[in-house]
Amino acid sequence: MSTLKPLAPDTLDKLRYASTATITMQLLKRGLRHGAIKGARPLDPAHARCVGPAYTLRFIPMREDLAGPPKPGTMLPHRMAVEHAPAGSVLVIDAGGAANCGTLGDILVARLKHRGVAGVVSDGPLRDLAGVVSVGFPVLSVGSVAPASMNEVMPIDVDLPIGCGGVAVFPGDVISTDMDGAVVIPRHLADEVARDSYEQERLEKFVLSEVKRGRSIDGLYPPDDKAMADYRQWQARGEGN
Amino acid sequence: MSTLKPLAPDTLDKLRYASTATITMQLLKRGLRHGAIKGARPLDPAHARCVGPAYTLRFIPMREDLAGPPKPGTMLPHRMAVEHAPAGSVLVIDAGGAANCGTLGDILVARLKHRGVAGVVSDGPLRDLAGVVSVGFPVLSVGSVAPASMNEVMPIDVDLPIGCGGVAVFPGDVISTDMDGAVVIPRHLADEVARDSYEQERLEKFVLSEVKRGRSIDGLYPPDDKAMADYRQWQARGEGN
Amino acid sequence: MSTLKPLAPDTLDKLRYASTATITMQLLKRGLRHGAIKGARPLDPAHARCVGPAYTLRFIPMREDLAGPPKPGTMLPHRMAVEHAPAGSVLVIDAGGAANCGTLGDILVARLKHRGVAGVVSDGPLRDLAGVVSVGFPVLSVGSVAPASMNEVMPIDVDLPIGCGGVAVFPGDVISTDMDGAVVIPRHLADEVARDSYEQERLEKFVLSEVKRGRSIDGLYPPDDKAMADYRQWQARGEGN
Amino acid sequence: MSTLKPLAPDTLDKLRYASTATITMQLLKRGLRHGAIKGARPLDPAHARCVGPAYTLRFIPMREDLAGPPKPGTMLPHRMAVEHAPAGSVLVIDAGGAANCGTLGDILVARLKHRGVAGVVSDGPLRDLAGVVSVGFPVLSVGSVAPASMNEVMPIDVDLPIGCGGVAVFPGDVISTDMDGAVVIPRHLADEVARDSYEQERLEKFVLSEVKRGRSIDGLYPPDDKAMADYRQWQARGEGN
Amino acid sequence: MSTLKPLAPDTLDKLRYASTATITMQLLKRGLRHGAIKGARPLDPAHARCVGPAYTLRFIPMREDLAGPPKPGTMLPHRMAVEHAPAGSVLVIDAGGAANCGTLGDILVARLKHRGVAGVVSDGPLRDLAGVVSVGFPVLSVGSVAPASMNEVMPIDVDLPIGCGGVAVFPGDVISTDMDGAVVIPRHLADEVARDSYEQERLEKFVLSEVKRGRSIDGLYPPDDKAMADYRQWQARGEGN
Amino acid sequence: MSTLKPLAPDTLDKLRYASTATITMQLLKRGLRHGAIKGARPLDPAHARCVGPAYTLRFIPMREDLAGPPKPGTMLPHRMAVEHAPAGSVLVIDAGGAANCGTLGDILVARLKHRGVAGVVSDGPLRDLAGVVSVGFPVLSVGSVAPASMNEVMPIDVDLPIGCGGVAVFPGDVISTDMDGAVVIPRHLADEVARDSYEQERLEKFVLSEVKRGRSIDGLYPPDDKAMADYRQWQARGEGN
Repeated sequence: MSTLKPLAPDTLDKLRYASTATITMQLLKRGLRHGAIKGARPLDPAHARCVGPAYTLRFIPMREDLAGPPKPGTMLPHRMAVEHAPAGSVLVIDAGGAANCGTLGDILVARLKHRGVAGVVSDGPLRDLAGVVSVGFPVLSVGSVAPASMNEVMPIDVDLPIGCGGVAVFPGDVISTDMDGAVVIPRHLADEVARDSYEQERLEKFVLSEVKRGRSIDGLYPPDDKAMADYRQWQARGEGN
Repeated sequence: MSTLKPLAPDTLDKLRYASTATITMQLLKRGLRHGAIKGARPLDPAHARCVGPAYTLRFIPMREDLAGPPKPGTMLPHRMAVEHAPAGSVLVIDAGGAANCGTLGDILVARLKHRGVAGVVSDGPLRDLAGVVSVGFPVLSVGSVAPASMNEVMPIDVDLPIGCGGVAVFPGDVISTDMDGAVVIPRHLADEVARDSYEQERLEKFVLSEVKRGRSIDGLYPPDDKAMADYRQWQARGEGN
Repeated sequence: MSTLKPLAPDTLDKLRYASTATITMQLLKRGLRHGAIKGARPLDPAHARCVGPAYTLRFIPMREDLAGPPKPGTMLPHRMAVEHAPAGSVLVIDAGGAANCGTLGDILVARLKHRGVAGVVSDGPLRDLAGVVSVGFPVLSVGSVAPASMNEVMPIDVDLPIGCGGVAVFPGDVISTDMDGAVVIPRHLADEVARDSYEQERLEKFVLSEVKRGRSIDGLYPPDDKAMADYRQWQARGEGN
Repeated sequence: MSTLKPLAPDTLDKLRYASTATITMQLLKRGLRHGAIKGARPLDPAHARCVGPAYTLRFIPMREDLAGPPKPGTMLPHRMAVEHAPAGSVLVIDAGGAANCGTLGDILVARLKHRGVAGVVSDGPLRDLAGVVSVGFPVLSVGSVAPASMNEVMPIDVDLPIGCGGVAVFPGDVISTDMDGAVVIPRHLADEVARDSYEQERLEKFVLSEVKRGRSIDGLYPPDDKAMADYRQWQARGEGN
Repeated sequence: MSTLKPLAPDTLDKLRYASTATITMQLLKRGLRHGAIKGARPLDPAHARCVGPAYTLRFIPMREDLAGPPKPGTMLPHRMAVEHAPAGSVLVIDAGGAANCGTLGDILVARLKHRGVAGVVSDGPLRDLAGVVSVGFPVLSVGSVAPASMNEVMPIDVDLPIGCGGVAVFPGDVISTDMDGAVVIPRHLADEVARDSYEQERLEKFVLSEVKRGRSIDGLYPPDDKAMADYRQWQARGEGN
Repeated sequence: MSTLKPLAPDTLDKLRYASTATITMQLLKRGLRHGAIKGARPLDPAHARCVGPAYTLRFIPMREDLAGPPKPGTMLPHRMAVEHAPAGSVLVIDAGGAANCGTLGDILVARLKHRGVAGVVSDGPLRDLAGVVSVGFPVLSVGSVAPASMNEVMPIDVDLPIGCGGVAVFPGDVISTDMDGAVVIPRHLADEVARDSYEQERLEKFVLSEVKRGRSIDGLYPPDDKAMADYRQWQARGEGN
């Protein structure tokens, strides 16, 4: 990921401020309708949020002569990914169609946390749900199941472009997650999407507070000039920070 | 909805007493096997219950030249529905096949709550789950996702008969929801279904209390004459209220 | 189930110590990739675990002339199963393809609990979720819905081999459940799978504690000779009990 | 099947005259909406039609220690079914969820044909499509695939009530198939459904001929008194035989 | 459909010349990725093609008290649609989620043909496949099944915007079908899409003929200047007409 | 593919003699249950068979800023694959989840044929069905649709291990197809699977001829010693060639 354009210093912080719903609206304004990974939801609502550049891992369907219980001394690609995903990155997994096996379990998730990785997103299940929750780490997946990955898939490579939940993910694309799931922001758009998502999020905080006070959405959402003036006053009063 | 047969004064209260499981049994006794909306579940278990006549909103698949980010001064049908659904009604949404976009978000849900609408039921996802939960309002949907509706569908009309989760919903049909989902009671049957659901629910409270005390289901559920006599005594003692 | 090979005295206890994820790995080591029931998850996370031999119940699609609201004096197979499943057994239900009806409700679940049955596993929904949770009993199913079983299926027989969630279940097979779902252990393998699952679980407790302390998975998971020596010391210190 | 009520002598012939579309309408008039087996279509359009009482065969998911390539001297239930299904019967298969394996292949289909069985209906795939077509025999299934049954399922018993494609099938129920698929007629209704299906089919032949000549469907379909009078004349002229 | 912008005189003819694959490419060039109706395929390959403006019919899920076998003297919306769809139009059906019932059968299809309607497109099944094929008329649907529509859905209105197979269809939009399925061209784009599809189709005929003669696709498809010059000579020679 | 173990001279010919059903049985005997690609069927029954080593092409979901109509001078990976797949190879496509777009059309298929490629297998649709059929070339896919690939996916690389229809495919694995679909034979097993499939196919030809003559499957299929002796005589008479 060394040749990627550097991100602006506050890009990750601004994305942390915004919801994934807001980010997808900014992607839509740029013509991108396919940024939300289908199926991945937080395994633990207490650890739903993470933001960081993508490090990718790809599985393909298993073949019985190549997939069995792990043996000492071997280092399969998913274990390498766990050791090599950079601190701050989000490990994004193309689960290879896995529906009834978990590509990672509690031990590998604990290792990721210790290494400073920001989170995990997969379009298949994980396993050891109780153990994963005990670790306390952002994991978004299609639920959890008991069987290990080699029941159904095998890891094949890392750091390549992948498809995850119907979305293209290139290494270095920026991932943001919350209770609504995970979104993928193309690297070259990350700074501007972060900037505009932050602004939109602030505005919507104002709108939501107004609606809760009883104001109609007519003229407010989306805002007309009067609503924008009110918003600027609201900002000037230091609200919404 | 002005020409609909008025409901008996206690119909909504009796439905609030009964579970949706009980209501579907009363529908089955009248030959109706298709009253439960498929897929819709409470977004927030703390706000699972609502009862009220249906106000309908229909989406169809989006077309790119007609669907984009909202613009000031426009009032699309789903926003009109949010402003026009009567107080006490349940907004029922035919999501038009939406699987990866949310037809409503936290701001519109907050507005519905303020306007006194009873709840929302949709056969597609909503968005802004964290925000919706913060509003504290009954919403039953197929989970939540980040993208906005115009990514995939567009609102087309209100107050027409719709299909929602495999069930026909006519404006004015009575909706009742709980943790098991949402059921639709045809308007012309609402009074009698409410009356009999209330009676069945009381009986089943008695049955459940007996079973918890160790009584076999044989002769009790469904009840024979002996069990019915016991039930009447139990009622006479003022239990189950 | 009288002619089944008796289980070793500590087999059920050892299975209670192990996670379903661990058990599926032991099944995989014996060439069995299909032991995890698809779709069944705990209705109540507070009651996710149960272990016991399977007692089976089979549903098939309903036919309108044969399926209606229950009548006093009748004892359909699912009600017989509720009265006849042995104490300590797990009632495993082939829901016959039910997707929109619940094969059991709160009253029958309360009866199962009172009779000392260990739990329920089904590849279809249950109903009366609020009531079932109030009972406090391990139920693993594909969520809950309002309609009763006779809307869609009818019970046909008990104590026969069935398919449940893509897994063959013979009466007497041993079932174990937790947050990751339910697994089926063939009767003739139950003792050895229990023994080795217990051992594996202890080892993985050690591995997880090491990883949480910052040790790399390289050489640890799976463990090389050094790691095994550390594990034996850890055991000797009395940890992991 | 020896204790089943005998069928009227012309019941099977009348069903052969009628389409499955007509038969389902007669079932609907008797309150039965679930008589058409989902998914099963003729493998060979030249052999789409068969009529006869059901002989049932049930599969459940395979378990690796019980399912392998066939061995000489063994006679698994599906092979017994092939030898024991009565001449004139339709072999109806509950494929146990098989989606990617074929429960029968060309050799067993050839044997069924030689034994005088009327046809095969399954809610899963068959295999050896080219070979099956070469046999020339009515087979309705969910397409064909290459793998053998033991890849995914195993036969478990015969002559029990089963579910097939969402429909309850009891041994002796009458099966009828054509290009639109397979329908199941409860044994006790077979005579009257056959009689009325025959009458309806004759009427619809008249209606179709009139529509092809340019007559509006208004008053004709369904027929009013004038249309019925025309129909009787048409019959009297000996048309539609 | 009286207020719709008239189509250019040769628009329908040009669309008849082009394949649906070509038309979707012209839609994509205008930013429309969602013009192909999912699931609908020709019931009869010999009658795969039709072109014409859409006339719409909408079904919703049936309710047992409202849906039964047709009665003389009634004229439900789908029968009205059959009598009122203009000559030359394509009847486009939102089947309301029907998966196991046919919204039209052979008699109504015969009537549509006699009235000069151009074809039928539905996102659900039809019924009476053998009869429909005997009529000889373009019908694109999701296969055929035996049961009648009232088993599962009921017609509710005509001539409104609908969703069909994931595509928005407004009355008057132009439909074109072939072996690859059915595409929807927004009315306001029909003339230009027809014009450019015709041009593209001619070019691709040239390209295909060149490829069949052995020319590499490099520089040919898409064509560079040299290939375009060759194409113009090919046109000048009168080929591809 | 230069470093792959060479195939025995008659391996491809022996595979051409065997059906895919037979090949999957030989894979099962070696413990491989996952060799049949799910979903791919011949677009044209007249061109169902091909055999050859795999050349792989991988798609991932499209992103709107990267996927548009092709431009002159560009050579995207799928076009490179069409020019670079070796003569005699089978192009195997991981369609990246494409369900509503075709990864190849008639022009590229015509080019593949001209270059001597043996066939195409994809787990997604193709497009231009009429054109593809006119080319006369083995294509196995999940049907055909009108939209082009860039509506939904984009090609990303060639000659890597992929998943296709639930099966791992490594470059050089041997592919064989017929009416039942496509199977993947691991390179290192190809010679022995070919040899044993050929032998099994010959035996089954004998078995099928015996069954057609009226012989029971008992003792014949699978064959006992008597049946094997008969088979050897049949072979000695020169039948089955």
